[in-house]
Amino acid sequence: MSNMKALVFIEKDRIELEDKPIPDVGPNDALIRVTTTTICGTDVHILKGEYPVATGLTIGHEPVGIIEKLGSEVTGFEEGQRVIAGAISPSGYSNACLCGQWSQDGQDNKHGFKPAGGWRFGNTIDGAQAEYLRVPDARANLSPVPDGLTDEQVLMCPDIMSTGFAGAERANIQIGDTVVIFAQGPIGLCATAGAKLKGATTIIAVDSVPERLAIARQMGADHVIDFSRVDPVTEVMKITDGRGVDVAIEALGRQETFEACLRCLRPGGTLSSLGVYSGDITIPLDAFTAGLGDNRIITSLCPGGKERMRRLMEVISSSRLNLEALVTHRYKLDDIVSAYDLFSHQRDGVLKVAITP
Amino acid sequence: MSNMKALVFIEKDRIELEDKPIPDVGPNDALIRVTTTTICGTDVHILKGEYPVATGLTIGHEPVGIIEKLGSEVTGFEEGQRVIAGAISPSGYSNACLCGQWSQDGQDNKHGFKPAGGWRFGNTIDGAQAEYLRVPDARANLSPVPDGLTDEQVLMCPDIMSTGFAGAERANIQIGDTVVIFAQGPIGLCATAGAKLKGATTIIAVDSVPERLAIARQMGADHVIDFSRVDPVTEVMKITDGRGVDVAIEALGRQETFEACLRCLRPGGTLSSLGVYSGDITIPLDAFTAGLGDNRIITSLCPGGKERMRRLMEVISSSRLNLEALVTHRYKLDDIVSAYDLFSHQRDGVLKVAITP
Amino acid sequence: MSNMKALVFIEKDRIELEDKPIPDVGPNDALIRVTTTTICGTDVHILKGEYPVATGLTIGHEPVGIIEKLGSEVTGFEEGQRVIAGAISPSGYSNACLCGQWSQDGQDNKHGFKPAGGWRFGNTIDGAQAEYLRVPDARANLSPVPDGLTDEQVLMCPDIMSTGFAGAERANIQIGDTVVIFAQGPIGLCATAGAKLKGATTIIAVDSVPERLAIARQMGADHVIDFSRVDPVTEVMKITDGRGVDVAIEALGRQETFEACLRCLRPGGTLSSLGVYSGDITIPLDAFTAGLGDNRIITSLCPGGKERMRRLMEVISSSRLNLEALVTHRYKLDDIVSAYDLFSHQRDGVLKVAITP
Amino acid sequence: MSNMKALVFIEKDRIELEDKPIPDVGPNDALIRVTTTTICGTDVHILKGEYPVATGLTIGHEPVGIIEKLGSEVTGFEEGQRVIAGAISPSGYSNACLCGQWSQDGQDNKHGFKPAGGWRFGNTIDGAQAEYLRVPDARANLSPVPDGLTDEQVLMCPDIMSTGFAGAERANIQIGDTVVIFAQGPIGLCATAGAKLKGATTIIAVDSVPERLAIARQMGADHVIDFSRVDPVTEVMKITDGRGVDVAIEALGRQETFEACLRCLRPGGTLSSLGVYSGDITIPLDAFTAGLGDNRIITSLCPGGKERMRRLMEVISSSRLNLEALVTHRYKLDDIVSAYDLFSHQRDGVLKVAITP
Repeated sequence: MSNMKALVFIEKDRIELEDKPIPDVGPNDALIRVTTTTICGTDVHILKGEYPVATGLTIGHEPVGIIEKLGSEVTGFEEGQRVIAGAISPSGYSNACLCGQWSQDGQDNKHGFKPAGGWRFGNTIDGAQAEYLRVPDARANLSPVPDGLTDEQVLMCPDIMSTGFAGAERANIQIGDTVVIFAQGPIGLCATAGAKLKGATTIIAVDSVPERLAIARQMGADHVIDFSRVDPVTEVMKITDGRGVDVAIEALGRQETFEACLRCLRPGGTLSSLGVYSGDITIPLDAFTAGLGDNRIITSLCPGGKERMRRLMEVISSSRLNLEALVTHRYKLDDIVSAYDLFSHQRDGVLKVAITP
Repeated sequence: MSNMKALVFIEKDRIELEDKPIPDVGPNDALIRVTTTTICGTDVHILKGEYPVATGLTIGHEPVGIIEKLGSEVTGFEEGQRVIAGAISPSGYSNACLCGQWSQDGQDNKHGFKPAGGWRFGNTIDGAQAEYLRVPDARANLSPVPDGLTDEQVLMCPDIMSTGFAGAERANIQIGDTVVIFAQGPIGLCATAGAKLKGATTIIAVDSVPERLAIARQMGADHVIDFSRVDPVTEVMKITDGRGVDVAIEALGRQETFEACLRCLRPGGTLSSLGVYSGDITIPLDAFTAGLGDNRIITSLCPGGKERMRRLMEVISSSRLNLEALVTHRYKLDDIVSAYDLFSHQRDGVLKVAITP
Repeated sequence: MSNMKALVFIEKDRIELEDKPIPDVGPNDALIRVTTTTICGTDVHILKGEYPVATGLTIGHEPVGIIEKLGSEVTGFEEGQRVIAGAISPSGYSNACLCGQWSQDGQDNKHGFKPAGGWRFGNTIDGAQAEYLRVPDARANLSPVPDGLTDEQVLMCPDIMSTGFAGAERANIQIGDTVVIFAQGPIGLCATAGAKLKGATTIIAVDSVPERLAIARQMGADHVIDFSRVDPVTEVMKITDGRGVDVAIEALGRQETFEACLRCLRPGGTLSSLGVYSGDITIPLDAFTAGLGDNRIITSLCPGGKERMRRLMEVISSSRLNLEALVTHRYKLDDIVSAYDLFSHQRDGVLKVAITP
Repeated sequence: MSNMKALVFIEKDRIELEDKPIPDVGPNDALIRVTTTTICGTDVHILKGEYPVATGLTIGHEPVGIIEKLGSEVTGFEEGQRVIAGAISPSGYSNACLCGQWSQDGQDNKHGFKPAGGWRFGNTIDGAQAEYLRVPDARANLSPVPDGLTDEQVLMCPDIMSTGFAGAERANIQIGDTVVIFAQGPIGLCATAGAKLKGATTIIAVDSVPERLAIARQMGADHVIDFSRVDPVTEVMKITDGRGVDVAIEALGRQETFEACLRCLRPGGTLSSLGVYSGDITIPLDAFTAGLGDNRIITSLCPGGKERMRRLMEVISSSRLNLEALVTHRYKLDDIVSAYDLFSHQRDGVLKVAITP
């Protein structure tokens, strides 16, 4: 085959659209022709050199596309099928996978565990911001898009929606729970939607951007708090009449929001953390009841794999949730560097950018 | 009735054995004549003024005794029965209790939740280091001691054993797990025993006191690490061939041990915290995989209530575990101030002190 | 006090409205003046002599009312407050309660467990179809009705809604699950609503009454099946493209529906049973994969207690669900015998009957 | 390559040792030279025609052996390594696997679920009673045997031990539970051992063969019941003083034992079924509390995969359990037909037979 265009990490603060050979497929791989992809906050961390990847790596981990070629061992799919693959692409065969921790997959590790090892696209192998993408362990990771759903309708499934929902799911939200979600970026908005889907009956969304708070209400928030105008912990305590929340979801990755989450919890409550942190975190003694509070702090990396993708697309196709409002801008792959510029500076009310090769 | 002796908190660094009226019983109470009790590390915190209680409060929360009197509504028990009551004495009727969080019981709270509110003896009401103890909500809290078990055999059930086991239980230890327990005081030793009972197959105990490490082996430790001679995290990684542990139990309440626990975890592992902290805790970014590790940090307060006590005594009576080695010293109630002196200075290899009124 | 009217079980097929003394309250009781109550399918079983209760017992277990009098130990409530109490009224203090199985509460049992022992109203003590109701263990069972909710809005909380939701909750329905619910009487309809609230994305409701199937759609059913016209198992397999359902909820209590549930399950699926059976149940070998299917069959009795009631009323007040459509008929307590006649013969499209003393 | 000997199913009641070609390996396969294997009760069902398999299939599903050849994609292993593979050999990549139900793996199914589909060896592909065995999806299924463990020490891991333990694990046995296990064949004995490892404190084993009851005591039974001399349900109620058991494990697959399990349960108890049934099962109304008992009936198929095998071998190597007593007889592969004769007639106190090619 010939060449394709791919967005490549060069060095800190420098990414470039380059020509690269279209990848070959091994026996367990699939090649997909990317039809739509998007940019994630994590990609911006990579661009800024805050999260290290190899020079020359194609970045991006949120693919929608068409199967172009299947490896010799990949049964159950057909070339020409429209599919997505999760941002996390577990092998299925590592020890981590075989005990249910697919995102900590150590495919090539002695022990079968690797921190965040299920995240391969745009991290340890070439990613999705390109014309073509090689999907490893394709039988575990290709998930056909139901007829009638557009690329943009399923574009959030590979990462944003899976991550946001995990914040609600791993906190084990029960019917009748009160939940606060700190930060209403794309992941926080999906956590808000996930809390609603799990049966929370008082959902409080915190942000400072009016547009985001407005979408939070669409996603299921019963109350919104603009933290630039009021102290969110005080406000949560007012809303809950002093009781605190059953679950607090952290969707930013900062000390202030982590700490505010802890301070909002009722005794015995759960802090569900989705943020990618860039510094140490402090747990204040008082907010922690000195360790006597029967609390849980849970971190979650985006769940992947084809069954997860199937279920998320079912949420869309059953009209339980509509995430199209999150796609605020559209760019051609040729213009992806401009899209990064917009997205990384959070200009023009951007939430997510659809990129079409 | 007349008076009784009781150990009373006067002010920081001052406790005294005083005469106090024997308590009356309300309709839901029981009065027990204490036959054996003990001193807990938390009591030492109280003595040192690090954990505030009211002046004049009788301290202690680990009673074995004989039912002296039952309130009018307390059925199912008989005067003269030998019983224990848990350190945590849940009401059973609060919102916290009714959703399974008995230790965060807000009996008298608007919302029914209160941080560590199930802990009443020697905290918010008079405690067990006295000749008599009033047990509130007696139907939820009195647990008959099986014939054939001595006071000392069940003396650890109300707190130490219940707390230590909770560290293993709430971490959801599975058959075949590898577990490290930091600190082998009485609670850490019981966490070690709990890990064994839950099916962990590689159990690593960390302390610096040779006698404690020797008892740790009796409790089920397969490996012991003297942290004064080697770096425990390095050693855990050696023992696990670089894999890390599934569960790390913190049984001290310090930054070093909390952090060491995090650093010992395999990707996706669980930190189960039993320590009572006296300062803020820092979660180092690297030990936390930046929040992407699918980790859980769980804190547990001692579970109480009569069903818990029944089960723990079953562990003893079925010979699954023998905790008599933990009782290293014996004192009369009259000499309890000396017992505190020994215990608080950790002299003479003391683990737990049996106090008999 | 003087007398009150109460519906009393006399003998098989005979119930009568009688004069009875208004109950006294003990220290832990409350007396509530019933403002609205309703008739349950179980009450009809009692009337028909299929479920034995003592002659002279007041029946009914779904109270909404006003606190008339509080026992000396009952704090946290005020006379004049509007409250509900669950059909199941756990003590909170039995061994069953203290290990989280509140509905199997053996308040007065040696071991603290009793089959369905949490169900007291209209079963082992006088019930709610009367002018006044004594609520035992009132601190565990009284739940204030939020301002702004009418009696009829919360009338389903004590039993129907709690039971129906339990079918979805105890099956551990996950986001993206496919669920079938057999029978769309009041409990089945609430199970349908519960499946929706838990995040199921394909919900299939089975019944033969068009009105019920229409309400099922309002409750969240994506598909409805009229079993009088098509074979429901075949139809479920069509809808799921041969895959089967993750969870099947049985809400009738018959062999046909139990068996159909099993036959609808995907490998590894869960049967959640809410029905009250009146005969042996057969598990067909083939529908059971000879025991190799990793299946779960779970039965659930209505969860009770004030925290449960609080959460269910939150579902109503947060507008997550509106159950007013279930109240199809209204009667005065004086006419309750006629109401039984209508309800037991399922005339006039009756779902639930509101009874006002 | 040339030929090998393999035990082949010919027709009902007829198995024969035949010459067959040594299998080729595909990219994801491994070929192992079997050094020890054994016969399972399920194999006897196959021999008797009670469980249908294809004519010509090699039977057996419990391999210990040496890696002879690895497929091109199989990394992380070396030829010459000593390994086991589970009786259930999940692919890791099906929808069932990707939601944690590895034993219901539909590798080649449209939906990714198949009843008992993880069981391939000696069921849908050639099995282990042969000189060589092809292991599909080898990266998910090969598990290296720790140095120092003999073939016979790990021979129970692939099936018997994994299945028996699952009975205890999936019932979620807690510290202090009372558990009865009906039938003390190899699987029941392992369920007894599993109950002990999970922390049960009263373990009751039921059988009629004195030798089995004697081994049951070694495995952890506190009480044994000879059902040929006393009624086991009556006896369990005596031992538990009328309370019943928290968990009853069925390890035979018959109506009598299934029903006896139900009748032994305390209210809210769990029946964990391991038996392979050969007829319909009846749930008696009274033993089921008419569906109101908050009971769970759970069936479990043997868990497989390399992580499971690793953990089970850890149980052996940590000396938590010694299953060598289960190997009562030893045969050469050449004599396997005689071994079947002995085993299927349960002659000479046979429990398990080691077969060495």
